[in-house]
Amino acid sequence: MDKKLLGIDLGGTTIKFGILSLDGEIQQKWSVETNILDEGSHIVPDIIESINHHLDMYKMPQEQFVGIGMGTPGTVDLEKGTVVGAYNLNWKTTQHIKDEIEKGTGIKFAVDNDANVAALGEAWKGAGNNSDEVVFVTLGTGVGGGVISNGELLHGQGAAGEIGHMNVHPNGYLCTCGGHGCLETYTSATGVVHIARDQAEKYAGSSQLKAALDNGTDISSKDVFDTAKQEDPLALRVVDEVCYYLGMASANIAALTNPEYIVIGGGVSAAGDFLLDRVVANFKQFAFPTIRESTTLRLAELGNDAGLIGAASLALKLQ
Amino acid sequence: MDKKLLGIDLGGTTIKFGILSLDGEIQQKWSVETNILDEGSHIVPDIIESINHHLDMYKMPQEQFVGIGMGTPGTVDLEKGTVVGAYNLNWKTTQHIKDEIEKGTGIKFAVDNDANVAALGEAWKGAGNNSDEVVFVTLGTGVGGGVISNGELLHGQGAAGEIGHMNVHPNGYLCTCGGHGCLETYTSATGVVHIARDQAEKYAGSSQLKAALDNGTDISSKDVFDTAKQEDPLALRVVDEVCYYLGMASANIAALTNPEYIVIGGGVSAAGDFLLDRVVANFKQFAFPTIRESTTLRLAELGNDAGLIGAASLALKLQ
Repeated sequence: MDKKLLGIDLGGTTIKFGILSLDGEIQQKWSVETNILDEGSHIVPDIIESINHHLDMYKMPQEQFVGIGMGTPGTVDLEKGTVVGAYNLNWKTTQHIKDEIEKGTGIKFAVDNDANVAALGEAWKGAGNNSDEVVFVTLGTGVGGGVISNGELLHGQGAAGEIGHMNVHPNGYLCTCGGHGCLETYTSATGVVHIARDQAEKYAGSSQLKAALDNGTDISSKDVFDTAKQEDPLALRVVDEVCYYLGMASANIAALTNPEYIVIGGGVSAAGDFLLDRVVANFKQFAFPTIRESTTLRLAELGNDAGLIGAASLALKLQ
Repeated sequence: MDKKLLGIDLGGTTIKFGILSLDGEIQQKWSVETNILDEGSHIVPDIIESINHHLDMYKMPQEQFVGIGMGTPGTVDLEKGTVVGAYNLNWKTTQHIKDEIEKGTGIKFAVDNDANVAALGEAWKGAGNNSDEVVFVTLGTGVGGGVISNGELLHGQGAAGEIGHMNVHPNGYLCTCGGHGCLETYTSATGVVHIARDQAEKYAGSSQLKAALDNGTDISSKDVFDTAKQEDPLALRVVDEVCYYLGMASANIAALTNPEYIVIGGGVSAAGDFLLDRVVANFKQFAFPTIRESTTLRLAELGNDAGLIGAASLALKLQ
């Protein structure tokens, strides 16, 4: 009987499940909506029910699974398998998810936070090329990440990988964390739009992006990159600023950890090589010479599956 | 027969040796001058001779040693036990030090670079309090460091811990690495003096430090801190600038790795709490809230012994 891994990517709108082979191939995938009512108290029972239902349907016994791994928002206690402060799940108090899921499914369980788990996924089966030295940076609504070195995720005192809160501009934009000039304020989807609004005010020339902003059109980070690709001069300036900060932060990350790969993912990274090439140019400007040659920046490859695959990889350690 | 560790701290002027207990207490210590003549070809034979001579003198057989660990300048290949590019030793070509020392002493040998080894020392027996999560920053002629997470040194692709080359000011001072505004250009001993000269030019008030600089007196980083402690207004400004950059860099280090301790050592750290308190104030300004509470900045405790003790700790892994 081939042993399997079960991965769960728990998000604020859906819970994704996957059954994977031990070498990380997704063999079954399904998802359910996240029911955050009643302080998120339905979430864990829903997960248990969905797993038991599917294993029953697929006629797969518990013993076939090395374990279940899950990525979750919030602050995770790895050893206890608890989560606290996952506000988009309405989890305000400590949730004993490991105990409950192990009891409910009869399968061993491990959990880590969603950015760390996505880092594991990209490192294992994505752009990280199964290297032991990978840093993952995800540019979404916020900016997060995970650091893998010596083949292990770094947790530090629990909050390692807060890449979005590295400072790139001491007097820069106000961040939700209370600081000024965090990377997130410039390179998240909202940061890109913030830069666009700022630069548009100062920009005098002709620009499709400026016209849209002046018209009060609600623009997205994607709009900025799309107009930049059409050589809109203002949009190009915005992209240059985004890539400048991301290149500098990548150089600082690499000075400290010198990974084989820095993998850039998340919604903003959908701009592809147009983004990457500009980030790399700035990275090379800021990076220490030996690091410039030994750390490579790449685009993420797994998209939404990174979390599922990385979550499943947590289960590998339960063997 | 109590097992022992042998630590070596190889520097450009002296080679320090120590015999340590397995729990890191130094029991014997000696040193010899570093003979860098003839492309440093005498160094390894001198090390072998000194070890054999002392073990003979102390009547300690080879079998009593778990291993020899050494910290060295230059770029180290951990597995091969080779060193290249240690210019202050005149080692221009690859040195096969592990092979030679193991053959010459009959004791197993491990090597890492000097900043990493000092980080291990401080983490194990110094301010790092034997934590598995410690970053060491050494403020000397340059700025170096080492990152320990999950109880292991990070090497990345070989150059992890280049803390001195994290960027703190994109248009800042030119660095020896070719970059601008590396941490080292502001917080090394030479960086402190550079800031002092720069600020003195702009400073109009009365200041002992300014008078000394205007007189052409050769000042040191220590002079700057000493006059600042006497409340010289210019010197205080210089110290504030040094601590600002070091505090910001520490916050960026902590955002990425969230260590339990960031340990600050090296000559500049001799300024003690006068330095530390100001760095901490800036760190708290720049750090992400959870990191502000969970990462503590401390002064190094082992001084020159950090390298010896950390080197010896490399030998522990040879068991």
